[in-house]
Amino acid sequence: MNQDVGRVVDAIAGRIREQLQEQARAHVSPKQPCKAGKEQCIGCGWSSARRADDTRTIMNSGAARVGAALDVGHVPSDIAKYIDHTLLKADATKEQLTRLCSEAKQFGFATVCVNPGNVRFCSEQLRGSSVKVCAVVGFPLGATTAAAKAFEARDAIRAGAREIDMVINIGALKSGDYDAVYEDIRKVVESSSPYKVKVILETGQLTDREKIVASTLSKLAKAAFVKTSTGFGPGGATVEDILLMKTVVGDKLEVKASGGVRTSEDAQRMIEAGATRIGASASVAIVTGAKGGAKSGY
Amino acid sequence: MNQDVGRVVDAIAGRIREQLQEQARAHVSPKQPCKAGKEQCIGCGWSSARRADDTRTIMNSGAARVGAALDVGHVPSDIAKYIDHTLLKADATKEQLTRLCSEAKQFGFATVCVNPGNVRFCSEQLRGSSVKVCAVVGFPLGATTAAAKAFEARDAIRAGAREIDMVINIGALKSGDYDAVYEDIRKVVESSSPYKVKVILETGQLTDREKIVASTLSKLAKAAFVKTSTGFGPGGATVEDILLMKTVVGDKLEVKASGGVRTSEDAQRMIEAGATRIGASASVAIVTGAKGGAKSGY
Repeated sequence: MNQDVGRVVDAIAGRIREQLQEQARAHVSPKQPCKAGKEQCIGCGWSSARRADDTRTIMNSGAARVGAALDVGHVPSDIAKYIDHTLLKADATKEQLTRLCSEAKQFGFATVCVNPGNVRFCSEQLRGSSVKVCAVVGFPLGATTAAAKAFEARDAIRAGAREIDMVINIGALKSGDYDAVYEDIRKVVESSSPYKVKVILETGQLTDREKIVASTLSKLAKAAFVKTSTGFGPGGATVEDILLMKTVVGDKLEVKASGGVRTSEDAQRMIEAGATRIGASASVAIVTGAKGGAKSGY
Repeated sequence: MNQDVGRVVDAIAGRIREQLQEQARAHVSPKQPCKAGKEQCIGCGWSSARRADDTRTIMNSGAARVGAALDVGHVPSDIAKYIDHTLLKADATKEQLTRLCSEAKQFGFATVCVNPGNVRFCSEQLRGSSVKVCAVVGFPLGATTAAAKAFEARDAIRAGAREIDMVINIGALKSGDYDAVYEDIRKVVESSSPYKVKVILETGQLTDREKIVASTLSKLAKAAFVKTSTGFGPGGATVEDILLMKTVVGDKLEVKASGGVRTSEDAQRMIEAGATRIGASASVAIVTGAKGGAKSGY
């Protein structure tokens, strides 16, 4: 598996480079107006925010134009349906969970995203509504065993969860043990079937090469989404990570932006970059356009 | 259960008050020399650091003298045996785990304390030595289900863990659902048998009354230890929390101090206050007396 993954990553890096070169023909330097005629073009504008990284070097300056290649940029009017309304802090009380569910029903969020111990309570609160319960698994460190994650996912589904957000085994990824990372995801996908699994990469702890490997493994293991962050680790969702992850997973998987998404503008930037789900605790501020979305909940 | 616990907590608060009054006769005001003749008396010295809190009010100023009541204060020369050498960060690599195990063997620490996903690897590293593997469960949020924690504990034991450090359900405690908190601990104790379970209260998120309740429930559920902190939440071990927890659990349970213990002096203060186990990543600095123990690992 490890050698296979190395080949897949190289192939993907090559494909990304080709895509970028192709896009480079439609776009010009970030300092000049966008050839595609867009006022705010992620393709042209992105490179200014680029960070140095090993795989980023592969992509060179053309990397900035990948956004347009994916035909992303549409911001939905029904943004609430894109949001997982999130409350994951350890000391969340029944009162706070009740309010979370009430807000989710009022605004029509996709799910409430909670810890497994709160799934049954939230399922009862949401009975008869279209809002689903999403449970986090192996959260937030991702450092438990695959067997424990698989059990936890199935247990959450028994309690009413209809989506599972799992954290990858970051240590195994850092140690180059891709078999372990893949098996970890595969087992959770298997035990969560037929429900969707989102794979949290914790991008703030990864190099770009590790993000590509983790996205590739998630795709191979038949996850439904790759997701940026837990909200408990360093960093959060960035436009460039969403673009990178979307480029790797293509149309087969969706991308969820989470961690630090607190305003309507934040959410729109993520959706423009290719995210089709947003994880946020400041969801009400996002849909109402209110300023100063709180960080509480993450 | 909830009513029972209320009665138990009231009874314990009463017993603590009596102990403190008794001790107050042996000690005088913190500003005067200690009647017990100690140069550095935790009993006399503690009150200056006291924080306001609901249960602290019950205890009044006499609370400061509980240390002496427990006949604690002996600092062992073989301090290494008191230490769980700890590496719990999400991105711990095999290389770092190898060093952790090597140091544990070299200095004779009690255990290495790691995430479940790293138990098997560390067990192999430590084969033939007296150092055990301690696995954390439901870590660090404690917000998964009792069934998931019990499975995770058993799974870790199958992989070689010989001690289990579980995090309580903090949200249930905050919501006053003591049945859930008790059952959560009981199930992990049951599934970990015959191995010892330490119950992490995450004291930095609790009021003193909640610390008493959680310590009481841990005792009722037949845990072996109560432990202060995960190292990932707010705050860490304090002398006053060790004293409080030791007073509640008495001789039946031990107390583990964890979170922010970085020097030999830190460790000695915790042991003087009643701790018989220290969780630390700066364990080598603690035993060698080196300054500037790193925070890495927590």
